[in-house]
Amino acid sequence: MTTNQLIVKMVFDRWNTLLKNGDTILNAITDEQLQKEIAPNKNRGIYLLGHLIAVHDDMLPLLNLGDKEHPELFEIFVKSPDKSVEVIPSPQELRALWKNQLENLTQKLASLSVDEWFEKHTSVSAEDFIKEPHRNKLNIIITRTTHLAYHVGQLILLK
Amino acid sequence: MTTNQLIVKMVFDRWNTLLKNGDTILNAITDEQLQKEIAPNKNRGIYLLGHLIAVHDDMLPLLNLGDKEHPELFEIFVKSPDKSVEVIPSPQELRALWKNQLENLTQKLASLSVDEWFEKHTSVSAEDFIKEPHRNKLNIIITRTTHLAYHVGQLILLK
Repeated sequence: MTTNQLIVKMVFDRWNTLLKNGDTILNAITDEQLQKEIAPNKNRGIYLLGHLIAVHDDMLPLLNLGDKEHPELFEIFVKSPDKSVEVIPSPQELRALWKNQLENLTQKLASLSVDEWFEKHTSVSAEDFIKEPHRNKLNIIITRTTHLAYHVGQLILLK
Repeated sequence: MTTNQLIVKMVFDRWNTLLKNGDTILNAITDEQLQKEIAPNKNRGIYLLGHLIAVHDDMLPLLNLGDKEHPELFEIFVKSPDKSVEVIPSPQELRALWKNQLENLTQKLASLSVDEWFEKHTSVSAEDFIKEPHRNKLNIIITRTTHLAYHVGQLILLK
């Protein structure tokens, strides 16, 4: 195993573990619990679920793996704070999107070779990438993993 | 920059960012807020602060950087659940330990060379490490970073 293969494995082990943790918590809470705030006057569980789906959907264009599949979610769950949009998808709808995304995203991420993970992502220019080679595709997984961990630590409070 | 240097930088950028986020939150909340539960019937902020210090202290022996500096905290904040130990350190004491640890740990981590980060940590045998080369010192930073993010996502709820 080369060091590059090793590090891609280490990063993906963490990403997949956190996705699984999130999925386990979602399966352990009811739709009613998901509608509750994670703490008084804070975001609701359903907002965090939509937020995670929208942020993970945005990884597709960033990694040059195609367009977002649900661009409308970005507006509701990233650009707007919780409780500011009147009609949002139901717990059932979001659960189905999450489940679907788990499979599709995992499949799409697996299509990249080890070397491709060290290539630039789409929001950095070729010029900047020469000076900042850490802004590669693998770094998207690293940053999205801590983002996911941050919100998984909040979703667990609904249990 | 070699790929190994690059990946060590990527991992430490995340670790340092999360430490800084945690530190910013701690500085923004009062001792009174720190004594509160992050959500009804969940861990108190002070427990999470002690927990983070104890877990980070435990990185020293794992990375072969010396003994724990505060072994007594592991018993209180890792082995025991919140509210089960009668007398625990005060917010002031824990804040001082956190601040001190931020500096000391950063300094100690900086003493390892890039190649050393890809060597085995102390809780894996030389034999197992041949079969599982991802169980290196850098992986300790990766896993502790998501652990930190998880609890930073909870501490922010006290604000």
